[in-house]
Amino acid sequence: MFIAVIGAGRCSAEVAALAEAVGQELAKRGAVLICGGLGGVMEAACRGAKAAGGVTVGILPGTSRREANRYVDIPIVTGMGEARNVLVVQSAQAVIAIHGEYGTLSEIAHALKLGIPVVGLYTWQLAKDGRENQAIVRAQTAQEAVEKALALAVP
Amino acid sequence: MFIAVIGAGRCSAEVAALAEAVGQELAKRGAVLICGGLGGVMEAACRGAKAAGGVTVGILPGTSRREANRYVDIPIVTGMGEARNVLVVQSAQAVIAIHGEYGTLSEIAHALKLGIPVVGLYTWQLAKDGRENQAIVRAQTAQEAVEKALALAVP
Amino acid sequence: MFIAVIGAGRCSAEVAALAEAVGQELAKRGAVLICGGLGGVMEAACRGAKAAGGVTVGILPGTSRREANRYVDIPIVTGMGEARNVLVVQSAQAVIAIHGEYGTLSEIAHALKLGIPVVGLYTWQLAKDGRENQAIVRAQTAQEAVEKALALAVP
Amino acid sequence: MFIAVIGAGRCSAEVAALAEAVGQELAKRGAVLICGGLGGVMEAACRGAKAAGGVTVGILPGTSRREANRYVDIPIVTGMGEARNVLVVQSAQAVIAIHGEYGTLSEIAHALKLGIPVVGLYTWQLAKDGRENQAIVRAQTAQEAVEKALALAVP
Repeated sequence: MFIAVIGAGRCSAEVAALAEAVGQELAKRGAVLICGGLGGVMEAACRGAKAAGGVTVGILPGTSRREANRYVDIPIVTGMGEARNVLVVQSAQAVIAIHGEYGTLSEIAHALKLGIPVVGLYTWQLAKDGRENQAIVRAQTAQEAVEKALALAVP
Repeated sequence: MFIAVIGAGRCSAEVAALAEAVGQELAKRGAVLICGGLGGVMEAACRGAKAAGGVTVGILPGTSRREANRYVDIPIVTGMGEARNVLVVQSAQAVIAIHGEYGTLSEIAHALKLGIPVVGLYTWQLAKDGRENQAIVRAQTAQEAVEKALALAVP
Repeated sequence: MFIAVIGAGRCSAEVAALAEAVGQELAKRGAVLICGGLGGVMEAACRGAKAAGGVTVGILPGTSRREANRYVDIPIVTGMGEARNVLVVQSAQAVIAIHGEYGTLSEIAHALKLGIPVVGLYTWQLAKDGRENQAIVRAQTAQEAVEKALALAVP
Repeated sequence: MFIAVIGAGRCSAEVAALAEAVGQELAKRGAVLICGGLGGVMEAACRGAKAAGGVTVGILPGTSRREANRYVDIPIVTGMGEARNVLVVQSAQAVIAIHGEYGTLSEIAHALKLGIPVVGLYTWQLAKDGRENQAIVRAQTAQEAVEKALALAVP
């Protein structure tokens, strides 16, 4: 099972703790963690996954594997900048979005467009035509997010 | 001046009329229209631009230029799927989002991440942490959208 | 008709003169010139095309349109680095390779893989299994190269 | 250590045997195998790596992980077509090219452009200006290729 964890490259200690717990829970369940490979939420999630003996993949925007955080096992060096966001979600069977900024929003949108389930932890809320969009499945805890992601994962 | 018009590949007659008016107004002001090159909002905007003697660029997701709508002057064939969305906004100095679906949302997010102004016509509304995000500059008419896009355009 | 001109970002005066003549000839025949948008062969070809009233497209590797040479009418900003080479050839109906370095070689290879004809002016020679590969159609002058490219162009 | 093995998606039994031996030798030395994830040379190399307990990464051109051969541990789903070739070589510290067709040639060219060493087993020969290009380091056996790739690998 391949699950993406998405979120900002800088984040608060609270958000990092949540990301770390998500990474740890994913590893315990045997899922491979896919992420953008940088700092913040990505680094915290990778750190959690490694603490539980998991495997981590970082799909990097730049042209050097040194850009990866130290908990990335498999750095993919794209040199494609923001366009690499599509690869992060497309390589996953479900996506867990933790808080996040505009890059995270783009990944949520790409995942929904591609039919890949998105579980949200305190992340973006979307509305159009005055109606709230319900496509993001909400969770309150790391464990709930991982359970929902694994349950919804596409083949 | 290069301005992107983004929106869904299928749309209502009302949304198409709005997109056509935006394309026409952009061409009158001498702006080159950048879009994703397909149908719906993209086709209507290109049709409007051509009616006013403008130039249109379609950055296509697939591997054939035949995928472009008939009003595209310059088809760019990327073969990159959704990742081409980044190129649409990155090639523009401002973006006009007209209604739209998840692909449009991804383009809005990429533009905001890259610091490219986004003017919205009846498009997505965003919120995080219970607060509405105000980054999309709202407009009510095609003319207002084009004026705001040209005024906000980055160099 | 969309024809790509490929070659190195720095080149000798002789190669530049050849590229300029190719650009001029393409414009005279009404073809749109597609290139990587930078200096050297790309700039010389664009200069030639503009001198004859043609239209030029530059598909740029970086994240700024300022990277384009001054003769590019339509800069496409990819931010994808070398991966943009695929877009240059895929957006063309035939490719004219002028001398060139490794980037040019990658474009020749992508074009041949995609079934897009390649006309070569003093460019790479290829061999495998001890036999010369004849897929590049050779030309000796700018005019001959343009004639062959237009004759071989795919739909 | 991350080493890419590149070659065609269909190949002779002899070439496949060579690719399998390269994959096996890489795994014995503890290197992670990066490839394009499809059949032919890619599949044979992955099979060899798995037989020796190695880790394999397949950077796929299409939009589905099912496209990966059965010996790929980590499928990266790019949806970028041929442009994914750049990612295969850019994610590696050295490249081993085994025979190959035009896709392989594009990867050799991208690697040389990016300064990533290329070791060749019965692969393309390059010449320009009537002189043979010596940038590809030649090897005659799988073991020699792997030794040279590991010795030349960039950081």
